[in-house]
Amino acid sequence: MQLGLVGLGKMGFNMRERLREGGHEVVGFDPRPEVSDVPDLAGLAASLQGPRVVWVMVPSGPITRETIVGLADVLSEGDLVIDGGNSRYTEDKPHAELLAHKGIGFIDAGVSGGIWGLTEGYGLMVGGSDDDIARVMPIFDTLRPPGPREDGFVHAGPVGAGHFTKMVHNGIEYALMTAYAEGYEVLAAEDLVKDPQAVYQAWTNGTVVRSWLQQLLAKALKEDPELAQISGYTEDSGEGRWTVEEAIRLRVPVPSIAASLFARFLSRQDDSPTMKAVAALRNQFGGHAVKRVGLSG
Amino acid sequence: MQLGLVGLGKMGFNMRERLREGGHEVVGFDPRPEVSDVPDLAGLAASLQGPRVVWVMVPSGPITRETIVGLADVLSEGDLVIDGGNSRYTEDKPHAELLAHKGIGFIDAGVSGGIWGLTEGYGLMVGGSDDDIARVMPIFDTLRPPGPREDGFVHAGPVGAGHFTKMVHNGIEYALMTAYAEGYEVLAAEDLVKDPQAVYQAWTNGTVVRSWLQQLLAKALKEDPELAQISGYTEDSGEGRWTVEEAIRLRVPVPSIAASLFARFLSRQDDSPTMKAVAALRNQFGGHAVKRVGLSG
Amino acid sequence: MQLGLVGLGKMGFNMRERLREGGHEVVGFDPRPEVSDVPDLAGLAASLQGPRVVWVMVPSGPITRETIVGLADVLSEGDLVIDGGNSRYTEDKPHAELLAHKGIGFIDAGVSGGIWGLTEGYGLMVGGSDDDIARVMPIFDTLRPPGPREDGFVHAGPVGAGHFTKMVHNGIEYALMTAYAEGYEVLAAEDLVKDPQAVYQAWTNGTVVRSWLQQLLAKALKEDPELAQISGYTEDSGEGRWTVEEAIRLRVPVPSIAASLFARFLSRQDDSPTMKAVAALRNQFGGHAVKRVGLSG
Amino acid sequence: MQLGLVGLGKMGFNMRERLREGGHEVVGFDPRPEVSDVPDLAGLAASLQGPRVVWVMVPSGPITRETIVGLADVLSEGDLVIDGGNSRYTEDKPHAELLAHKGIGFIDAGVSGGIWGLTEGYGLMVGGSDDDIARVMPIFDTLRPPGPREDGFVHAGPVGAGHFTKMVHNGIEYALMTAYAEGYEVLAAEDLVKDPQAVYQAWTNGTVVRSWLQQLLAKALKEDPELAQISGYTEDSGEGRWTVEEAIRLRVPVPSIAASLFARFLSRQDDSPTMKAVAALRNQFGGHAVKRVGLSG
Repeated sequence: MQLGLVGLGKMGFNMRERLREGGHEVVGFDPRPEVSDVPDLAGLAASLQGPRVVWVMVPSGPITRETIVGLADVLSEGDLVIDGGNSRYTEDKPHAELLAHKGIGFIDAGVSGGIWGLTEGYGLMVGGSDDDIARVMPIFDTLRPPGPREDGFVHAGPVGAGHFTKMVHNGIEYALMTAYAEGYEVLAAEDLVKDPQAVYQAWTNGTVVRSWLQQLLAKALKEDPELAQISGYTEDSGEGRWTVEEAIRLRVPVPSIAASLFARFLSRQDDSPTMKAVAALRNQFGGHAVKRVGLSG
Repeated sequence: MQLGLVGLGKMGFNMRERLREGGHEVVGFDPRPEVSDVPDLAGLAASLQGPRVVWVMVPSGPITRETIVGLADVLSEGDLVIDGGNSRYTEDKPHAELLAHKGIGFIDAGVSGGIWGLTEGYGLMVGGSDDDIARVMPIFDTLRPPGPREDGFVHAGPVGAGHFTKMVHNGIEYALMTAYAEGYEVLAAEDLVKDPQAVYQAWTNGTVVRSWLQQLLAKALKEDPELAQISGYTEDSGEGRWTVEEAIRLRVPVPSIAASLFARFLSRQDDSPTMKAVAALRNQFGGHAVKRVGLSG
Repeated sequence: MQLGLVGLGKMGFNMRERLREGGHEVVGFDPRPEVSDVPDLAGLAASLQGPRVVWVMVPSGPITRETIVGLADVLSEGDLVIDGGNSRYTEDKPHAELLAHKGIGFIDAGVSGGIWGLTEGYGLMVGGSDDDIARVMPIFDTLRPPGPREDGFVHAGPVGAGHFTKMVHNGIEYALMTAYAEGYEVLAAEDLVKDPQAVYQAWTNGTVVRSWLQQLLAKALKEDPELAQISGYTEDSGEGRWTVEEAIRLRVPVPSIAASLFARFLSRQDDSPTMKAVAALRNQFGGHAVKRVGLSG
Repeated sequence: MQLGLVGLGKMGFNMRERLREGGHEVVGFDPRPEVSDVPDLAGLAASLQGPRVVWVMVPSGPITRETIVGLADVLSEGDLVIDGGNSRYTEDKPHAELLAHKGIGFIDAGVSGGIWGLTEGYGLMVGGSDDDIARVMPIFDTLRPPGPREDGFVHAGPVGAGHFTKMVHNGIEYALMTAYAEGYEVLAAEDLVKDPQAVYQAWTNGTVVRSWLQQLLAKALKEDPELAQISGYTEDSGEGRWTVEEAIRLRVPVPSIAASLFARFLSRQDDSPTMKAVAALRNQFGGHAVKRVGLSG
């Protein structure tokens, strides 16, 4: 089928390719002319036959908001917009309402798989009405991995449920990465263990901990066995923070997801104010030596 | 090749079957005569041709110790013992030394895969000398999953390294389970999400969080969508505790593994003494109502 | 000086008493006629001479909002409202703006000390303009404990800073209580220690851990040495949740405050969905026995 | 009464002073001749009248062990040794047995208060027999703070109970420090709060969080308002590690003490191997940029 696609970055670019390989007609728009098929959103709308379907794949937050406002201007009654970015699920209902005023439908779609989705397919979690989702199913079926539909796609609930589910997916992802990483640090600290990389390689098959992330860590360690070239400084992209916030709202204890989030915050600090205060306290009551800033140590 | 196998429980029984299917001659001993091939350890030794190899697959702790002491009595110089149970790695060196006094070799082997190992193969992490391990390689190659040897087997280091690696594997396993379980609780608490089982099913393919454990949780939720028939009471078998203890020894921070361990302790308490003390404190300073024991609430 | 006081619950009632003992004229309003000095907010306004000062001491959330809206109706230009409840600091600016439209000033005041404040004085953290705060200082000086002003009172910053500071105070309070409570549980679990209460009593003097909360736990244990009459079920009143949420906004890692919050959530669950999922997983891969619901354990 | 005192470091030196001021006759031994009253342990024994009491105040571990072995050589039946250092409680029984072979008694004493104990008195937690403890009570009464004995001294149980209790005290201390420090970091991160030091100062009176440690943090912030001169690098002295290990043995969940311990480990790492592994994973699946070592950032 025909699809408009806004945003041709790391994710959108690959999705356009996978969809075209799947036989769909994709018109892509991106502010960078060298990758864009049309000059602007109006051009995108003009190049699609109604009723149109437009997939938005841009950074969450203001850019997504602006894009949806822009599409509300250029699209018409009966058209349909899909937000496939990592928007916070609380944005979905306002976006759906904004579009509904013009008779335009809305689906929120969580898309997992990263740069591997191009070849392996993307895990999809979508929210919206049955009718809207049925209409886009050919697109979803091409994007998702081959195999039974229910193994790589879920209609999670009404508008918002797709992004909520993707948010939880990413919260879990944070905690899984921390689990593998803590285990790596223990292995690497113990002299008995000759080569942590070989251990991670051996775990890829037959073990209880085997997983896709586990394979990727084995791969990363093969490329750089002591991770000597990589810094621990780690960004977080919103979903982890939101998962903890939503868990708090729902009164759900999430100690391991929260620990993973806090570890990222900490990784970006030059020195921890918390630990400076602890060191100051020890010095106060015990006369314990503290490391003065600027001294080697 | 020929192998003696002590312990025909859930794990040992299946391993005997997989090894026999792989063409090995396995003589099994177990105190339960209905599954045992020989009446006792002496009978086991007598039924094997020297130099013998005997695999011990019994519960860690005193039973493993007694079995190894017993084998030291009935085996001879040049024989070899493999401890495939979940022994703490600190036991391995004493066991190796005990056997070495009689000229008997020792390998420690961590075995992962649970009840699925029979059909899918077992992930193996072993510690010992190159020569000893080379000698048992035909057994390892049958037990491990098909495919490249390094993807399901690792010679992790000298005696102790196998069990150390398996211990870390299980520590990671604890944290992975907690990660998926926290995510499940958040999904189940949010009304927008119609069916957490369908989400877990959809995550089995294409997503970043896909894994064998993730598939198993999807399966468990299919069998009992609200986990209504299952209690949160969860045992822990030693490796999680040891991983945190070793991490402390090595000064490695393991917040998410520790959180997973503590959650298991908590799951086995009728009421938390910690939280009773917190409730008592709130009552003291704030006059906050407390729930009295025995009152509904 | 003269003060209107709205809300004569556990906190407000005691504050009226302390203020009257301090020589202030307090007109109190409460919906319960048996404690109220006036029939309604209009009556409160009428009984005060302008420019009036009214202290609001009602539950945070809608009731605070309604009270401030009601006061905006009955007060006049030049009057001043103080919100002394546990409002989220993000409410303060809207409340200040709402009142400013009528020329009414606003101070947010965090008040600590619980039921003990009546006799010992209340710790005060306030936000607002220098002029507004100077005007109410006689009230603050009576409410706070005797001694140097800076040891029991802080003008923390502009509107919002008082409640923000009180929120952090309560977040810390959560973590302190958990610290003492975890220690209690370890002591109570060890047979060597004859009487945890005697330990907590001994810690009240000379030790590094001595504190007011620590004394209260000693007192609680004296009243009920095994906390046999108290349930671990523990409410949380907002500030702990907000502290974690604000920490996330500010990218500050707060593992121990978050752990304390999650422990409260957990204390209110009959069974943990997270641990049900963990138990289900163990059963899936290991054939580990699970506790079925309804069976004794 | 007369007392031998081995170890005149930061703690022992001050204790000798406090005891002498209290009217006791103290003979101190230390390997540093400039502070020592006698040349060696034999000289110490010779200078005391039997039955002797000797207090050991040296670093825990091998030095304590050697000192006790040395005292067993020079003391006689009916004498009594007190280990007042931070020994692990599991050392106490072996030490008691070693001394009992020669008819020498043993008490383990946890001593809290740091450098402030000289003037304010030391919190004491002791383990041993009723008779042994009664004999040393005049010493304990001088060391502990003035006031009721039970408010600064506890006979916690048999040999081992004193050090166990002190260990838990220090575990709690770790968590208390983290609680105050996390709160400090949140306050310092929020622009609304003008001066975190003033807040900590104001909390010293009337608030629920007031404590001795809280006062010390106010003092530290007064000396260095932004802790600019202090590094977050923080040692740990054993008791925190042991508390978590004992909690694991006793199956007691201690998330906040463990978090505090791990934060110290982390504070001593140049870069976190765990976070390097997390960053490597993100790079693998998402093509997320990683910070390369050696780049500014």
